[in-house]
Amino acid sequence: MAEKLSREQRRAQLISIGVQMLSERSISEFSVDVVARQAGISRTLLFHYFDTKLDYLTTVIQHAAAALLEQIQPPEDGAGIDRMHDTMLAYLRFVVRRRTNYLAVFHAPTLDPTLAEVVEEIYQTLTLRLLAAVGVEEPTVRQQMLARATVASLETMALNAERYGTTPEELADLVSATFRRLVAEE
Amino acid sequence: MAEKLSREQRRAQLISIGVQMLSERSISEFSVDVVARQAGISRTLLFHYFDTKLDYLTTVIQHAAAALLEQIQPPEDGAGIDRMHDTMLAYLRFVVRRRTNYLAVFHAPTLDPTLAEVVEEIYQTLTLRLLAAVGVEEPTVRQQMLARATVASLETMALNAERYGTTPEELADLVSATFRRLVAEE
Repeated sequence: MAEKLSREQRRAQLISIGVQMLSERSISEFSVDVVARQAGISRTLLFHYFDTKLDYLTTVIQHAAAALLEQIQPPEDGAGIDRMHDTMLAYLRFVVRRRTNYLAVFHAPTLDPTLAEVVEEIYQTLTLRLLAAVGVEEPTVRQQMLARATVASLETMALNAERYGTTPEELADLVSATFRRLVAEE
Repeated sequence: MAEKLSREQRRAQLISIGVQMLSERSISEFSVDVVARQAGISRTLLFHYFDTKLDYLTTVIQHAAAALLEQIQPPEDGAGIDRMHDTMLAYLRFVVRRRTNYLAVFHAPTLDPTLAEVVEEIYQTLTLRLLAAVGVEEPTVRQQMLARATVASLETMALNAERYGTTPEELADLVSATFRRLVAEE
């Protein structure tokens, strides 16, 4: 039965159900009927809050991604903190610990160009954050590309951490040194 | 209507239809009914050639991947050829030119652990090939990890080549220099 929720509460509820579902099934199997049923509303009412299924999915992925970006934000103050290293470490830990959820958000939507672009924007945000953490606020295209490739390296090493018998701590030490050199050379 | 085909011919036909379908829809939407219909046989008969849908999909992805690995093999003779650079270049060109097909094979199956492992094995093959091309036949775990991360960097830069306004040739020059240094340092 539908509870009385405000428009914003209902949207938040539907997004939360979607984020949960994303960790349980692939994007292609994603069912708005099941989402509506879990929320106790009709499919028609769901589309009162979101224009299309793609609109809904995009919002769900953006929220899942925002949660990731929030979690890998090192503290603002941080005297003596190496922000770049710590951002990498937090990202690596997230990927290792929440591997399945991570794959669901970041690797599932590649076949839909709109969703793929949403995901790529998250990688770009992380990329710019790493560059800003080493003082590069206005990166060249080449610096952006190298930093983006570094994010891809981090992700791959984290997803294969078990295979290589390595830890987020070791990886952050390894890649942060290389990254500093790569960016400085440009 | 089903033509009279030998067991091997029929398997080859079904695999070929599957590879084509992989470039048109995501793994989750992959339908063995449609494959059987296109081959002019029944679904039941298809499962005479492949034990399960997963068995069929695994075979299809392995074939698509083998075709990729074949295409990025530099010539065996090659006096004066830089095999590592040329392998990277061939891979980058393939990803840039056949972006959609590439994504279909390499990025779609991540949510199924069995298929994800099949795809990871292909990355590992490419990784070992790059190491062998610079004379490292028995890489340490760390060298394997660095080479695997390099493959991830190549892939990401190729998939974003348009965004960064770069070419496979430029990327191969850039990454091959870094890779040689990375592996030598170990």
